[in-house]
Amino acid sequence: MTSKKAIETLAITTKIVLPNDTNTMGNLFGGQLLAWMDVIASVAAHRHCRRTVVTAAVNNVSFAQAITQSSIVTLEAKVSRAFYSSMEIFIDVFVEDPSSGKKRKCNEAIYTFVAVDQYGGAIQVPESIPESPEEISRYEGALRRKQLSLILAGKMKPNDATELKALFFEEKK
Amino acid sequence: MTSKKAIETLAITTKIVLPNDTNTMGNLFGGQLLAWMDVIASVAAHRHCRRTVVTAAVNNVSFAQAITQSSIVTLEAKVSRAFYSSMEIFIDVFVEDPSSGKKRKCNEAIYTFVAVDQYGGAIQVPESIPESPEEISRYEGALRRKQLSLILAGKMKPNDATELKALFFEEKK
Amino acid sequence: MTSKKAIETLAITTKIVLPNDTNTMGNLFGGQLLAWMDVIASVAAHRHCRRTVVTAAVNNVSFAQAITQSSIVTLEAKVSRAFYSSMEIFIDVFVEDPSSGKKRKCNEAIYTFVAVDQYGGAIQVPESIPESPEEISRYEGALRRKQLSLILAGKMKPNDATELKALFFEEKK
Amino acid sequence: MTSKKAIETLAITTKIVLPNDTNTMGNLFGGQLLAWMDVIASVAAHRHCRRTVVTAAVNNVSFAQAITQSSIVTLEAKVSRAFYSSMEIFIDVFVEDPSSGKKRKCNEAIYTFVAVDQYGGAIQVPESIPESPEEISRYEGALRRKQLSLILAGKMKPNDATELKALFFEEKK
Amino acid sequence: MTSKKAIETLAITTKIVLPNDTNTMGNLFGGQLLAWMDVIASVAAHRHCRRTVVTAAVNNVSFAQAITQSSIVTLEAKVSRAFYSSMEIFIDVFVEDPSSGKKRKCNEAIYTFVAVDQYGGAIQVPESIPESPEEISRYEGALRRKQLSLILAGKMKPNDATELKALFFEEKK
Amino acid sequence: MTSKKAIETLAITTKIVLPNDTNTMGNLFGGQLLAWMDVIASVAAHRHCRRTVVTAAVNNVSFAQAITQSSIVTLEAKVSRAFYSSMEIFIDVFVEDPSSGKKRKCNEAIYTFVAVDQYGGAIQVPESIPESPEEISRYEGALRRKQLSLILAGKMKPNDATELKALFFEEKK
Repeated sequence: MTSKKAIETLAITTKIVLPNDTNTMGNLFGGQLLAWMDVIASVAAHRHCRRTVVTAAVNNVSFAQAITQSSIVTLEAKVSRAFYSSMEIFIDVFVEDPSSGKKRKCNEAIYTFVAVDQYGGAIQVPESIPESPEEISRYEGALRRKQLSLILAGKMKPNDATELKALFFEEKK
Repeated sequence: MTSKKAIETLAITTKIVLPNDTNTMGNLFGGQLLAWMDVIASVAAHRHCRRTVVTAAVNNVSFAQAITQSSIVTLEAKVSRAFYSSMEIFIDVFVEDPSSGKKRKCNEAIYTFVAVDQYGGAIQVPESIPESPEEISRYEGALRRKQLSLILAGKMKPNDATELKALFFEEKK
Repeated sequence: MTSKKAIETLAITTKIVLPNDTNTMGNLFGGQLLAWMDVIASVAAHRHCRRTVVTAAVNNVSFAQAITQSSIVTLEAKVSRAFYSSMEIFIDVFVEDPSSGKKRKCNEAIYTFVAVDQYGGAIQVPESIPESPEEISRYEGALRRKQLSLILAGKMKPNDATELKALFFEEKK
Repeated sequence: MTSKKAIETLAITTKIVLPNDTNTMGNLFGGQLLAWMDVIASVAAHRHCRRTVVTAAVNNVSFAQAITQSSIVTLEAKVSRAFYSSMEIFIDVFVEDPSSGKKRKCNEAIYTFVAVDQYGGAIQVPESIPESPEEISRYEGALRRKQLSLILAGKMKPNDATELKALFFEEKK
Repeated sequence: MTSKKAIETLAITTKIVLPNDTNTMGNLFGGQLLAWMDVIASVAAHRHCRRTVVTAAVNNVSFAQAITQSSIVTLEAKVSRAFYSSMEIFIDVFVEDPSSGKKRKCNEAIYTFVAVDQYGGAIQVPESIPESPEEISRYEGALRRKQLSLILAGKMKPNDATELKALFFEEKK
Repeated sequence: MTSKKAIETLAITTKIVLPNDTNTMGNLFGGQLLAWMDVIASVAAHRHCRRTVVTAAVNNVSFAQAITQSSIVTLEAKVSRAFYSSMEIFIDVFVEDPSSGKKRKCNEAIYTFVAVDQYGGAIQVPESIPESPEEISRYEGALRRKQLSLILAGKMKPNDATELKALFFEEKK
C-alpha cells in the first residue's frame, strides 16, 4: 500500500450562493455549508485511498464570518493524516471579494472519514505524507484531536492521552 | 429576560430518506444529515431566545451507524445550556425499525448558535434551566466543552480551563 | 392483528419556509405544503400498519391563511380511522409567532393512504382506536367522508350512504 | 371584465419521473404529484384572470394508478368555473406508454384558487365560458362541489345546498 | 419503421420562475433554462423514436432576452430532422406577459439526441416528415448544421460540406 | 482597464453524480451537466471582468461519453478570448477512474457570457492574454466561432467572415 502525499488528495469546488442557500439574514445557511464540506471532503478522502468512504465524524467547525448571497465560495479539502482505516480532512473555505477578487478565508472545518468495503466494514488505508509547514502542523495536531475525541466518547482514559495532556502540563511547570 | 426550561425549546422533525439523500452504499449522506440537524437545531435555538439565530459552530458529531434509504428518521433538538449570547444545542437522531417501530438512537450531535440583531451583532439570550437528569448532565458538560473549544481556538489558556483540567487531574491523584 | 391507538401514529415535522418554497407574494406555495403533508401523513400511516403505504386520495385541504417566508411551520399527522386496507389521516398545520412563540393553527387536511404488499396489492390494516374527544369526532366523521367520496366517484348510490344522508334529513324534520 | 373561455386557460406541462420523485415502491410520490398539479393549476388560474392567484383548496384528488420511475407524465389544467373571486380548476394527468406512445389518463384532481390584490385581499375574476361537453359537465358540477365544501366547512346549512340535495332526493322518489 | 410527422413529436412544458432559478440580477439562470430545455427536448426525441434517448450535443443556444422571476415560461420542443440514429430538436421558449397574456418568443435552441439500446449503442430511428413552412425550413437547415458540426469536430473536410459551402459561394457570384 | 491572463480566470468545481442527476440509463443527464457548466463558466467570466455576467450563448457542446452515477466529475472553466463586452469560455470536463484516480477528459463546451451594469446594459471588459499553446489556439479559434455565430444569427454576411471563409478557400486552392 503506497503512501500518499497530502497534496495528491487536494479537492477543490467552487459554488455561487443562491437564494435557497440563505437564511433570513440573507447569509449562507450553516447547514448548507456543512453539506458542501462533506461532499468535497469525501472526494479528498476518496483520492487518498481510492475506496468507498463514509463520514465518521465532524470534529470541529466554526462559522466566524457570515457569507452573503451571490458570493463565490471556494472549498479546498485535503487529508491531514491517516490512521488505520480513518482519515482526518481539513476543509478551508474562501470567499472572493467581488471587485478585487481577493480571496479571504472565512471558515475551517475538520471531518473524519472511514474507508469501507462493500459490506460497510472498515478497511486499511495508505499512510499520509505531509510536506508543507501547514500540512506538517496539521498532521501533528491530528493525534491530539483523535485522543480528545476518544476521551469525549469515553473510549480512552485522559491519563493515556499523552499528546493531549502535554497541553496542560507544559503550562503547569 | 425570563429563563427558559430546556424542554420548552424541544424541536422535532421527521424525515424519510430519499434516493437523492444517499451515497453509493445506499445510506444517508453525512452531509445531508448535517444540514437537517442544522435546521432543527436553529428552531430549538430560536425557541429559546425568540430572536434571529445563526450557526456558530459544530462541536462534535459522530456517525456511528449507517442509515439506509427509505428509513424514517427523527431528529430531536434541545438547548442544553445558554451562555451570554450563545446557546449549545444537543441533537439526538433516531431511526425507526420498519416492522416493530422501535426507535433506535443512531447519532448525537452538538451545535452552537448565536442570537443576533438585525445588523448581525451578538445579543444576550435568557438563561437555560435543565430539569431531567440528562438535561442536567448535558448542562454541566457544556462549560467543559466551551473551555475546550476556546483552547483549541487559541482564545483561552489551558491553565484557565478549570472545568476541563479537572478531567486530567482527577486521574492523577 | 393488534389495534392501534390514534396517538401511537402521531408524526411531527417542523420546517422553516425557505425562499424557494414561496410564491410571488412571498408566502408558502400551496404545492409545497401539499408535498410536506403527504410525507408526514405517510409516516403516520406507516406507524399505524408497519407496511408500505401509498397515497390514495387527498380528500380535503383548505388554505385559509397565508404562511410567510422564514416562518417555523409544524405539521402533525395522526390516523383518524382505518378501514379494511385504507387509513384516513388528519394533518394539522401550525405556525409559530416569531416573538411570542405562540402556535396558531393555520391549515387542516385529510389524506387517505392504502397499505400495499410488494406487488402493490392492497392488504389489511389494524383497527384504529380513538381516545380524545377530537380523535373520536374525527373517527366518526370518517365514515361520512368515505361515503361521500364513494358517491362522488360513482361507486356508491346516494341512498346507501346512510351516514351522509342523515346530514340532509335531520334538517328536513 | 371580459369572460374567458375555458379553453383559453388550458395549461400543459410534461415531466419525466426522476429517482428523487419516487417512493420505496419505485413509483411517483403522491406529494410530488400534488406539488406539480398545484403549479400548473396556478398557471391556468392566472390565465383566466391575469392577476396573482393563491391556492385556496384541494377539493378532491385520487391516486388510482401508480406511475413508475422514468415515466413521461403530462398534466393538463383548465378552469372549470369561476365564482366571484375563486376559480375551480380541473387537472387531468396522463402517462405515456413508452413503446406505443399511447396516453392513458391516470389521475384527476380539483383545486380551487383565489385571485388576490397586492395586499392579499380577494378580488373579482371574469366569468368562465364552458364549450365542450366535458367543460359543460364540469361547469355544472362545480356549484354542487362548492356547496359541499361550504357544508363541510360549516359555512352553509345542508338545507340551502339545493344543487347537492337533489343528489339525494332524486333517488328518494 | 414508420416515418413520424414533426408535429407528432411536439412536447410542451410550462414553468414558473422561482427564486432559486434566478441569478443576482433577479433573472432566470442560463444554466437552469438549459436543463429545462434538455428534459423537454428528450421527450420530443423519445416521441419520435419510442426508444431511450441521450443528449449528444447542444448545437446553438442564444439568450437574447432576460426572463424575470415569477415569469410563466413555456418551452416547445419538436424534432426538426432525423438522421440515421440522431435527431435534431428545436426548442422555442416563450414568456407570457402577466397582464395581457401575450406570449413573446425569447429564446431558441437546437439540441441533438441519439437513440440507444440497453448497452448504450446507437440504433436507427424513423425518418422525420416536416409539414409546415417553418418545419420544412428547419428540416433543410439541419443538414447544413450537421455538416458544420462535423467540420468543427474535425470529422469532415470543409470541401465535402456541400450544403454549407453553398452559403459562401452564392455570395461570391 | 488592465488585461487579464487566461490562467487568472481558471475556475474549478468538483461534483459527485447523485441518483437524481441521472437518466434511465443510470448516466448523468445532459441537462444537469449543462447547468453545472453554466455556473462554473460564470465564475470564470466574473474573474475576468469582476462585474455581473449573464449567459449570452452556448456555442457548442458535445456529449461524447456517458458519465455514470457516483462518478467524481471535475469541471474546469477558463476565458479563451474577450471581445468588447463578451467573453468566450471553454469548459473542460474530466471524470476520475475510481481505482487508479486517472482523470479522463470526457466533454468540452464553449459558452459566451456578457458583462452587464445594474440595468442589464452591456459594458466593456478587459482584454484576454493567452499564454499556453492550448490557450493561444483557443484564442485564435474564438474569432472564427464568433463570425460563425453572427452568420447563423443573420447578423453578418458570409463574405465578411474572413476568418471563417479561409476554412473553405484554403481547400479550394
